[in-house]
Amino acid sequence: MNIAEQIVAGDVRATARLLRDIDDQIPSARDILKELYPHTGKAHVVGFTGSPGVGKSTLVDQIALRYRQDGLTVGILAVDPTSPFTGGAILGDRIRMQRHFLDSGVFIRSLATRGHFGGLTRSTNDMINVLDAMGKDMILVETVGVGQDEVEIANSAHTTVLVTVPGMGDEVQAIKAGIMEIGNIFVVNKADREGSRKTVRELRTLIELGLRRRVENGWEPLIVETEALKGRGLEELYSDIQKHREYLRANPQQLNEVLWKRARNQFVEALRDQTLRTILDRLNNRGVSLDALIKMIMNKEADPYSLVHEILNEELR
Amino acid sequence: MNIAEQIVAGDVRATARLLRDIDDQIPSARDILKELYPHTGKAHVVGFTGSPGVGKSTLVDQIALRYRQDGLTVGILAVDPTSPFTGGAILGDRIRMQRHFLDSGVFIRSLATRGHFGGLTRSTNDMINVLDAMGKDMILVETVGVGQDEVEIANSAHTTVLVTVPGMGDEVQAIKAGIMEIGNIFVVNKADREGSRKTVRELRTLIELGLRRRVENGWEPLIVETEALKGRGLEELYSDIQKHREYLRANPQQLNEVLWKRARNQFVEALRDQTLRTILDRLNNRGVSLDALIKMIMNKEADPYSLVHEILNEELR
Repeated sequence: MNIAEQIVAGDVRATARLLRDIDDQIPSARDILKELYPHTGKAHVVGFTGSPGVGKSTLVDQIALRYRQDGLTVGILAVDPTSPFTGGAILGDRIRMQRHFLDSGVFIRSLATRGHFGGLTRSTNDMINVLDAMGKDMILVETVGVGQDEVEIANSAHTTVLVTVPGMGDEVQAIKAGIMEIGNIFVVNKADREGSRKTVRELRTLIELGLRRRVENGWEPLIVETEALKGRGLEELYSDIQKHREYLRANPQQLNEVLWKRARNQFVEALRDQTLRTILDRLNNRGVSLDALIKMIMNKEADPYSLVHEILNEELR
Repeated sequence: MNIAEQIVAGDVRATARLLRDIDDQIPSARDILKELYPHTGKAHVVGFTGSPGVGKSTLVDQIALRYRQDGLTVGILAVDPTSPFTGGAILGDRIRMQRHFLDSGVFIRSLATRGHFGGLTRSTNDMINVLDAMGKDMILVETVGVGQDEVEIANSAHTTVLVTVPGMGDEVQAIKAGIMEIGNIFVVNKADREGSRKTVRELRTLIELGLRRRVENGWEPLIVETEALKGRGLEELYSDIQKHREYLRANPQQLNEVLWKRARNQFVEALRDQTLRTILDRLNNRGVSLDALIKMIMNKEADPYSLVHEILNEELR
């Protein structure tokens, strides 16, 4: 069996190796991804996003256990662009794996490095495809972030869960229409804290304000209070995710929109990332180092706009 | 006078028009940016970042007023990727302009749209260059976000200010080393609230934990408590930004690192963005629409990896 076949057969070591190669941007990973692609499309991808400290990891781990009770297999990707310089991800994986370590039905992997020039969204997409091809039924992607990251995870997922906690009243008020629109399910975690009902009410008001657009889409976002550590509300969250999944199944046009958004995101991110890498490699092979170009810009011997223009003229047909 | 000359002379209408063209991705904007580039490099760029609702806008507006008292001119860019689908930015600009509207020394502009395929970082860089060439002494860039966005604004700024509020204890604890490392100054805003001292102590602990690396860099991050609405702590924040600026002036090696980081970010983002746009335009001119490619991926007639590979083979020399 070649590597792709091993992964499709569910081989954990081959999968882990490929994910590492994707993270390290090893070019040969792309050939395996090509082979794996026809085996993707079966998993349901759920994105969990919210500020640091709201309890996303605990929630994701608990939901993963719940899926295991159903006999479903689970892949977990923890995307954390806030720790680009640390090796914390591997340690985090080990700690979390202990919760699931007797269970071969759960596969956990963290992405903390951003690579040399971003490309985090593209790596996330690639890793989702690998876990999908590996046969995981549910893929849970957790991302830190209140800005661009949230919008981007929504482009990679079938179902997007926005997680907050009580007492972030200002945050809720400041949540903009754009963010509200990408959430299919809103979780108020740590709901034993003061102000949980108030946060729920505020979320409901924000959802109703946006409802006119919602009604066209046909899906009214659900709100659920949880205490992930105690397991409270998890059954409800589990069932809400299920409802959204069934909604997509029953509404081919909505499902089509989600699949379109995902395909577009995958293609554009891969094209953007791959093109940049290829051009920088070519410049390098011609003896033009990135460092030399940056030095020219710093010293005002050239401006970035003219340099880009020249490079495109030379490199593109 | 051509447009670039008008902007260098401080013409507000010409500047506003160019910023709009950058936002709308009008190709001719690039030629003007080329002309403006030699006039950049004089402004000091301060990035303000933090979760929604922490009071960044109020803080930025107050600091802007303080600079005006010194006779310095100010450009403000409010980058908000959380509202990609709304027209809220223009309204926000109008409301904020009222605070400064008699003052031609302040120029405010919001970026809320993400363009068709991201490119927000690149647009921000371009707009910073325009305000710099226009002669603004201080450029204040405020961004929402706890993830990737924060790291990116740090790459565009000379001084990075991370803003938080008391009672986000979990958030502070969860702030990762990566984020701590990009902050030159930490602001605890709304410091009249319970828990402000505790938040300051937690920040101090986190900074000390990272101090070994800090000492090599020579700059120990400053922490300041503010109540932006009442003006409390603003003089201290103002003086802390000044200290960081003077620190960079007195340490050519550190300054050089900042300038290198900024030049690199500008070049790589412009290259990434421009290349993608050019390739999509060319495909379109050859009758290959993006939509048709996405449909092929959705229908599994092609995989994104092979398509990207083919396109690069055809489009690159």
